[in-house]
Amino acid sequence: MTRLVPELLRRYLPILTWGAEYSRRTLANDLTVAAIVTVMLIPQSLAYALLAGLPAQVGLYASMAPLVLYAVFGTSRSLAVGPVAVASLMTAAAVSPLAAQGTPEYLGAAVALATISGLMLLAMGLLRLGFLANFLSHPVISGFITASGIQIAASQVAPVLGIHVEGENFLELIVSLGRNLGHTNPFTATIGLGSLAFLFWVRQSLKPLLRRLGVGERPADILTKVGPVVAIVATTAAVWGFALEPQGVRIVGTVPQGLPRLTLPPLDPALWMKILVPALLISIVGYVESISVALTLAAKRRQRVDPDQELIALGASNIGAAVSGGFPVTGGFARSVVNFEAGAETPAAGAFTAVGIALATLFLTPLLFFLPNATLAATIIVAVLSLVDLGALKRTWAYSRADFAAMSATILVTLAQGVEAGLVVGVALAIFLHLYSTSKPHVAVVGQIPGTTHFRNVTRHTVVTDPEILSLRVDESLYFPNARFIEELVNEAVAANPAIRHVILECPAVNTIDASALESLEAINHRLKDGGITFHLSEVKGPVMDRLKRSQFLQELTGKVHLSQFDAVSSIKPELAESTRAAPRAVAGIAAGVAPSPPSQQT
Amino acid sequence: MTRLVPELLRRYLPILTWGAEYSRRTLANDLTVAAIVTVMLIPQSLAYALLAGLPAQVGLYASMAPLVLYAVFGTSRSLAVGPVAVASLMTAAAVSPLAAQGTPEYLGAAVALATISGLMLLAMGLLRLGFLANFLSHPVISGFITASGIQIAASQVAPVLGIHVEGENFLELIVSLGRNLGHTNPFTATIGLGSLAFLFWVRQSLKPLLRRLGVGERPADILTKVGPVVAIVATTAAVWGFALEPQGVRIVGTVPQGLPRLTLPPLDPALWMKILVPALLISIVGYVESISVALTLAAKRRQRVDPDQELIALGASNIGAAVSGGFPVTGGFARSVVNFEAGAETPAAGAFTAVGIALATLFLTPLLFFLPNATLAATIIVAVLSLVDLGALKRTWAYSRADFAAMSATILVTLAQGVEAGLVVGVALAIFLHLYSTSKPHVAVVGQIPGTTHFRNVTRHTVVTDPEILSLRVDESLYFPNARFIEELVNEAVAANPAIRHVILECPAVNTIDASALESLEAINHRLKDGGITFHLSEVKGPVMDRLKRSQFLQELTGKVHLSQFDAVSSIKPELAESTRAAPRAVAGIAAGVAPSPPSQQT
Repeated sequence: MTRLVPELLRRYLPILTWGAEYSRRTLANDLTVAAIVTVMLIPQSLAYALLAGLPAQVGLYASMAPLVLYAVFGTSRSLAVGPVAVASLMTAAAVSPLAAQGTPEYLGAAVALATISGLMLLAMGLLRLGFLANFLSHPVISGFITASGIQIAASQVAPVLGIHVEGENFLELIVSLGRNLGHTNPFTATIGLGSLAFLFWVRQSLKPLLRRLGVGERPADILTKVGPVVAIVATTAAVWGFALEPQGVRIVGTVPQGLPRLTLPPLDPALWMKILVPALLISIVGYVESISVALTLAAKRRQRVDPDQELIALGASNIGAAVSGGFPVTGGFARSVVNFEAGAETPAAGAFTAVGIALATLFLTPLLFFLPNATLAATIIVAVLSLVDLGALKRTWAYSRADFAAMSATILVTLAQGVEAGLVVGVALAIFLHLYSTSKPHVAVVGQIPGTTHFRNVTRHTVVTDPEILSLRVDESLYFPNARFIEELVNEAVAANPAIRHVILECPAVNTIDASALESLEAINHRLKDGGITFHLSEVKGPVMDRLKRSQFLQELTGKVHLSQFDAVSSIKPELAESTRAAPRAVAGIAAGVAPSPPSQQT
Repeated sequence: MTRLVPELLRRYLPILTWGAEYSRRTLANDLTVAAIVTVMLIPQSLAYALLAGLPAQVGLYASMAPLVLYAVFGTSRSLAVGPVAVASLMTAAAVSPLAAQGTPEYLGAAVALATISGLMLLAMGLLRLGFLANFLSHPVISGFITASGIQIAASQVAPVLGIHVEGENFLELIVSLGRNLGHTNPFTATIGLGSLAFLFWVRQSLKPLLRRLGVGERPADILTKVGPVVAIVATTAAVWGFALEPQGVRIVGTVPQGLPRLTLPPLDPALWMKILVPALLISIVGYVESISVALTLAAKRRQRVDPDQELIALGASNIGAAVSGGFPVTGGFARSVVNFEAGAETPAAGAFTAVGIALATLFLTPLLFFLPNATLAATIIVAVLSLVDLGALKRTWAYSRADFAAMSATILVTLAQGVEAGLVVGVALAIFLHLYSTSKPHVAVVGQIPGTTHFRNVTRHTVVTDPEILSLRVDESLYFPNARFIEELVNEAVAANPAIRHVILECPAVNTIDASALESLEAINHRLKDGGITFHLSEVKGPVMDRLKRSQFLQELTGKVHLSQFDAVSSIKPELAESTRAAPRAVAGIAAGVAPSPPSQQT
C-alpha cells in the first residue's frame, strides 16, 4: 500500500510530476506567458459572460479558479481553461427557460450548471467513461460548432448596432433583426462596426504587416491575438471622452471590484433535474473541444495527454468555477494556442494567468466602466466566425453522404430548434445511419481466378465457379443490424438457383459474430439442411472462431469451417463428383452423404 | 408502361402468380387444411381476445379478414395470420391506460391500434424499410418473448383459479395472486387445473401414444395441435350439465351471432398520437415473429419469401382486422406450422380457413355460451409456456456477455415495467453495447515472422520488429465510436517510444472509414508530422481506398499507402538506413527526407 499511494497520487495529481522538475528558468518563462495570456483573456472573459446572459464580472470569476485547478489536475502542458463561446451559448440556452436574465435565479442556475457538469466530468473520469464522448461523431460536432458560431454571430449583431431583438433561435433572431434595423443607434453602430472592421483587419492583415516590419513569427502571432485589447482601450476612451453614454451607447458599467466570494452552489433538486441533460451535453461538447486541443498541442512536442485524467481536471475546473460564482468552462482553442505559442512550459503558466486576472479584478475593473457592449459583441463575432466551417459540408458531401446527412441535420436543427435539439438529433441520426449502412453490407459472389488459389468477386473478375457451389464473401462484421439480411440473401440465392448443393460463407472481413448473427447462421444452416444443401464457412478469424466454439453451431453445422476459400472448394468438389455418381439428382442422398464433420479451425 | 403495370401488379399481388396455377387438386387439398386449422383456431382466437382484454368474439373477427387479405398480398405459402399471444399482451398494455376494459372506448382504441399498426407496416413495405426490424436484435426479441410468456402465464393463473387480481406488471400480479389465493373458487379451479393437466398431457404424451397406436407422424402432430378442442367441449358440457355457473364459474356467455359489421376506425388524432409508439413496437415485434416463421417454412420447400412484400401483406391484414372490428394480428408460429404440416399448398388455405371461422361465427357461437373462461386461460398458459426459453440466457451468457446483458435487461424491465419499457431499454442497450464494443477495438502491434512475408501480433508470435517502425493492425472498421481511441493510442505509443520514426497502420479488417475516422487519421498524420514521424497505411481495401481518394488525406499523408505490410516495411527500411547515415538523430532531417509521396493503391 505504501508504494501504491504515491503511484495513485501521481496519477491523479500530475502537478506532482511536473512540479518536481520546476526550475527558476521555467518560472521566468511561465510568468511572461501568463502576462500575455492575461491581456488576451480579460476582454474575452467579459464578452463570453455577456453572451451567456450573465454580468460581465462572472466571466472574470470563471477564469481564475479553473486555471489553478487545471494546473493541479491537468495533463496537458499548454491547455488554458475558461469560458468559451460554444459553452457560453449552451449555458444561455439551458438557463434562459428557467429564469430571467439579470436575476439571482439566472446566475444561480448557471452556477448549478457548472456544478453538475463538473460532477459529471469527474465521475466520467473516475469511472473511465471518456469513450462516451466518442458518440459525438466528428460531423455532428463540426456541424454543431458551425451552427453555434452562426447563431452566436447572429445574436451579437443587435448589440453591435445598439438595437434590441427578441428570439431564441437563429430564424427568430434574423426576423427580429430585420424588423428593428430602423432603431439602430448611430453612435453604438459606429463603435460596433468600427471595432468589427478593426478586428477583422487585425486578424487578416496585422500579422503580415508586422512580419514585413521585421517582427518575428511568434511575436507577430501573439500581437495579433491580443489585438482586441486595442479596440477595447480605444472605444472605452471614446465613450468616456465624447460622453457617448447619454447618447444611448450601452456600456459595461459598474463591475464589482474584488475577488469572488466562495459559495456553495444552490442545492435545489428540482433545478438540478431540469438541467441534467443540458449539463451532460455541455460536459461532452466541452470535453471533446478540450481534448482535441490538448492532443493537438501535445503532439507538437511529443507530450502525453491522459484522456481520463483530463476529464477529472475539467471536472475540478468546473466545480472551481461554480464555487467562485462562475459558469461552465472548458479548454479553449484560441487561448490554448496563445499559451502554447507564447511558450508555456508547464500548467503553472495557467495558474499565474489566474493571478493576473485576479489582480485585474482587484484593480482594473473601474477602468472597464465605459467599455461599450458593442465592442465586446464585435470581439465575439470575429472570434466565432472562425468556428464556422461551411467548407466542411462540401468536403463531407464528397466523402460520405451519411456523414453529410448527420452534419447538415445537426446544423439545421441547431439553428431552427436550438443547441440541445441539434446535438440530440445529430447523435441519434449518426448512430442510425451507421447501423443502417452496416445493415446491408457489401456481399460478393466469389469465384476462383483460374490457376491460382485466389477467389474474387464474379462481377469484377474473370473467375471459375461451380453451379453446385455458391460462395459468398461478406465484407462486414455479422451482427444484429445485418443478421436477417444475410438470412434473406441466402434464402433468395438458393431459391433462385435450384442446382446449388453447397453454400460457403467466406469471412475474412468478419471481425465479430454476435448472438443475433449466430442465431441467423444457425437458421441458415437448418434451412439449408431442410433443402438438402450443405453449409460451410471459410477464413474465419481466430477470435471469432474462439467464440463460435462456445456455441452449439459448430456441432450442428452440416459442412465444415475451412482454413481458406480454396481449401473449401477443393474439399467439396470431390464430394460432389462422388455423390453425383452415387445418386444423381437425389437431394436427400446428398444431404445424407455430407454428414456433419468436426470443424477445423483457423489460427 | 403497359409492360410495367402487370410486372408491378404481380409484385404487389402475389395471388396473381399462384392463382394462375391453381388447380382442382390444390383446391381439395387446401379445403382439407382449412378444416383442420379452423378447428384449432376457434378456441385460440377466443382466448387471445380475452388476453387482450376484449370480448371473445373480437378474436373471431380478427381471424377472418386478415387471412383473406394475406392470401391476396402475402408471399409465404404457409403463413397463417391472426391474433397471437405476444401481440395480444402488447395490445392490452397499450390500451389499458387509455380506457377501462369492457367499454366501447377500449375496443375503439384496440381497433385504432390495429389501424395504425397496419398503416405503419404498409408504409414500411412500400418504402422498403424492413431493415428497421433489424434493430430488434435477437437477444432482445428472445428476452422480450420469454418475459411476455412469463407475464401472460402469470396473468392467466387468476382465471384458472377463479380469483380476481390487481396489477399491471409481473411483480404486482404475483403479489396480488398470493394475497387472493384464499378466494379460489373450487369449481373453477377444478375445471382450470383439470384443463391445464389435460393440455400438458396432450402436448407431452398424446403424440407418442398416437404413434404407438399406429397413427402417422403428421396426423399425430395435427391431432395433438387440435387437442385443446376436446378440453373446450368437455368443460363446456360440464358447466352446462352440472349447472356450474351459479357456483361462480365464469363463462364466455353470449357471443353475438353473425359476421362483424365493417366500420371505420375512430378518427381521433389525440388517441392516435398516444398509441403511436405502442403501434410501432407491435408492428415491429409482429413483423419479426411473422417473417421468422415465413422464412423457416419457406426454406423447407425452397420457396421464396419477399420481406418487403410481407410488410405490405401484414399491413393489409391489420387494416382488414381493424375495419372488421378486430385487433392487431400477425403471422403466428403454432397456426402456421399446423397449416404447413396439414399440407397447405397455397395461401388459399388461409382464405378457406377464414370461411370456416365465418361459418362458426354464424352458427356455432351459441354452443360457446357455457364455455368456462378457466379453460381458455389454461389453453393460453400451455401455449405461452412454450415461448419461455430461459435456456437462451445460459447459451447467450456463454457466447456473448454483451448480448446476455441486453437479453436479461429486456426480461427484467419487461417484467418490472411493462412491454414497451422492456423493448425500448433492450434496443437502446443493444445498440449502446455494440457501439461500446467497437469503441475499443482489438489493436495488435505486429512484427514480421522471420523468413516470411507474414506479419503477426508481437505478443502471440516470435517476430522481428524495427525500433524505428511501429506497425499497428486494427481489427475493426474505423468510425466515430473508435476514431478518437486510435488517435489516443498512436499518441500514447509514440510518446512512449522516442525512437519511432515511422508508424504503419495495417488495415486488412477495416471495412469502412467514416468522416470522423478520416478526421482522426488526418489529425494523426499532422501530429506525427509535427513530431518528425512519417505515417503510412497498408492493406487498405478497394472500396475504402476509393473513398479516401475523394478526400485530401492521400495528398497530405506524409508516407504512402502500401499494397501489403511487407511492402511497407521493405520500402521504409532502406530509407531509414539512408537517413540515419545522412543525419543521425536529426529528427527534422528525417522528416524532410521522407517527403510526401504520391500514394499507391490497392485494387
